[in-house]
Amino acid sequence: MTKYFIGLDVGGMSMKAGLVDENGKIICKDTCVTAPERPYAEVVKDMYELCRKTAEKGGVDFESVAGVGIGIPGTVNSEKGTVTYSGNLNFVKVGVLKEFAKHTRVKTFIGNDANCAALGEARFGSGGGKKNAILVTLGTGVGTGFILNDRILEGNDGAGAEGGHICIRINGEKCTCGERGCWEAYASATALIRQTERALEKYPDSIMHDIVKEMGKVSGRTAFLAYNKGDKAGAKVVKDYVKYVACGIINLVNVFRPDVIMIGGGVSHEGDYFVKMVEKIVRRHSFGGSNNKVPPVVRASLGNDAGIIGAAALAM
Amino acid sequence: MTKYFIGLDVGGMSMKAGLVDENGKIICKDTCVTAPERPYAEVVKDMYELCRKTAEKGGVDFESVAGVGIGIPGTVNSEKGTVTYSGNLNFVKVGVLKEFAKHTRVKTFIGNDANCAALGEARFGSGGGKKNAILVTLGTGVGTGFILNDRILEGNDGAGAEGGHICIRINGEKCTCGERGCWEAYASATALIRQTERALEKYPDSIMHDIVKEMGKVSGRTAFLAYNKGDKAGAKVVKDYVKYVACGIINLVNVFRPDVIMIGGGVSHEGDYFVKMVEKIVRRHSFGGSNNKVPPVVRASLGNDAGIIGAAALAM
Repeated sequence: MTKYFIGLDVGGMSMKAGLVDENGKIICKDTCVTAPERPYAEVVKDMYELCRKTAEKGGVDFESVAGVGIGIPGTVNSEKGTVTYSGNLNFVKVGVLKEFAKHTRVKTFIGNDANCAALGEARFGSGGGKKNAILVTLGTGVGTGFILNDRILEGNDGAGAEGGHICIRINGEKCTCGERGCWEAYASATALIRQTERALEKYPDSIMHDIVKEMGKVSGRTAFLAYNKGDKAGAKVVKDYVKYVACGIINLVNVFRPDVIMIGGGVSHEGDYFVKMVEKIVRRHSFGGSNNKVPPVVRASLGNDAGIIGAAALAM
Repeated sequence: MTKYFIGLDVGGMSMKAGLVDENGKIICKDTCVTAPERPYAEVVKDMYELCRKTAEKGGVDFESVAGVGIGIPGTVNSEKGTVTYSGNLNFVKVGVLKEFAKHTRVKTFIGNDANCAALGEARFGSGGGKKNAILVTLGTGVGTGFILNDRILEGNDGAGAEGGHICIRINGEKCTCGERGCWEAYASATALIRQTERALEKYPDSIMHDIVKEMGKVSGRTAFLAYNKGDKAGAKVVKDYVKYVACGIINLVNVFRPDVIMIGGGVSHEGDYFVKMVEKIVRRHSFGGSNNKVPPVVRASLGNDAGIIGAAALAM
């Protein structure tokens, strides 16, 4: 008999649930608004209701599912089942699992949403079931999730896995976290846009100016589009950005030496050629060079479903 | 009945064995030369002989010990029981455990020597038995050992745990590994000496010149001695060096958020005040600041015995 799980991916705007089988396949999904301005007990009750509804939508009695996994943005203590702090959900020291258990006897687990995505990608996505995998998300910031021996690296009180805040240039660019030189300040989409804006100022003849005019704004794609049209300034931006992304990945490889590195987030949609450019530098500059096994760098494959699938995987 | 273990710490010059009880206490030690120019089978036979001799010296029949742990400098695959590469021992793809088992039926384990030291310090030294601990060794290079959930982080084929080669300044100082900007190139004793030499050139009035004259050479202590006598140039070197050490530790805290950070190696002998200076910066600049638990930074306490005790701990 197939075992079913519910994966719940909770965001500040909406929450998404999926009925997931033991192979990580989503049978059906459902969603509802989060409305985090309400008392937490109401939000948790809606989490439960959405899980129940999603199971029933898939023709499965909720109380018979093998487990529920909940992914939450913020600092999560999975062992205690508590959310230490979630700005998006307006949760401060909330015993989510205890509250959830008031509604059901189904075994339930909780984790940080980015860590869940890493677990989902590692087990059922681009990680191909590898036991040691790192997901790097290049978006507004740089997120990292670490799967070691098939388990999430959470850190004390859920405060670890902040690889985006590894300093790669002491006294460097200012980061949103208040420190200087963080990887995120060089390798996020936000950083790429900043680097593109500087290049636009410096190279008035670059075709990036035309691209910006056409698109109506500078974006994380501007430099890549110019690069692909043979623009020198665009190529310089791309080359430097790839080096920044690779630098942080090399740092992670030297410490973890995982089986695979997966790149997700907005910038990863640029395509496989971008990921290959990163991989080439990682392969050349990781510690020990070709004497050591260098993990492949691949593009994350689950997209927005990684959170649901990974949350479900928490319960497997 | 007390259980006994043998910890063997193998170096390029000599190997040291200890009979260790289950509390990590060394009952007795013995040592012999390694002579790594010989065929590996002879070296491994001597490892066995030393273990047997050490047990007997402690009044314990070797075949009755609960386990043997062997720490080896180089890339070790503990799961397979093999040494992928050890320059010091002249081992390339040697099945050490298989060879060792030709001599005895005692259960034997193998690990990288620095990782063993981290395990020893975490479980029986300054780590106080904490399950998640990082040992940072500030010596000729910067070594790192990671204990997660009471287990060594080894990485694929034993090639991980090279935290000294996290890049903290992209395009920065040249490192012995061939890359640029590694933490080791800023925070090792070697780097400290280089920083001191530069300051000597820049500040001809610094009392560091007198200290060098008196000691006969520039050392890792020069700047600290001057700093403690109120010298401004010495203080600047120390302050910058402490910042470099802290920068790398903050990177590790942000990713692992361990229970404790332990500092060992030559520079740590400078004393607790040095470690406190580092801790102060780590506390202030780790991600999330005081909202997150920041691990204490402490001085390693086992000294040269960490390798023996940690190797024995492999077998516990």
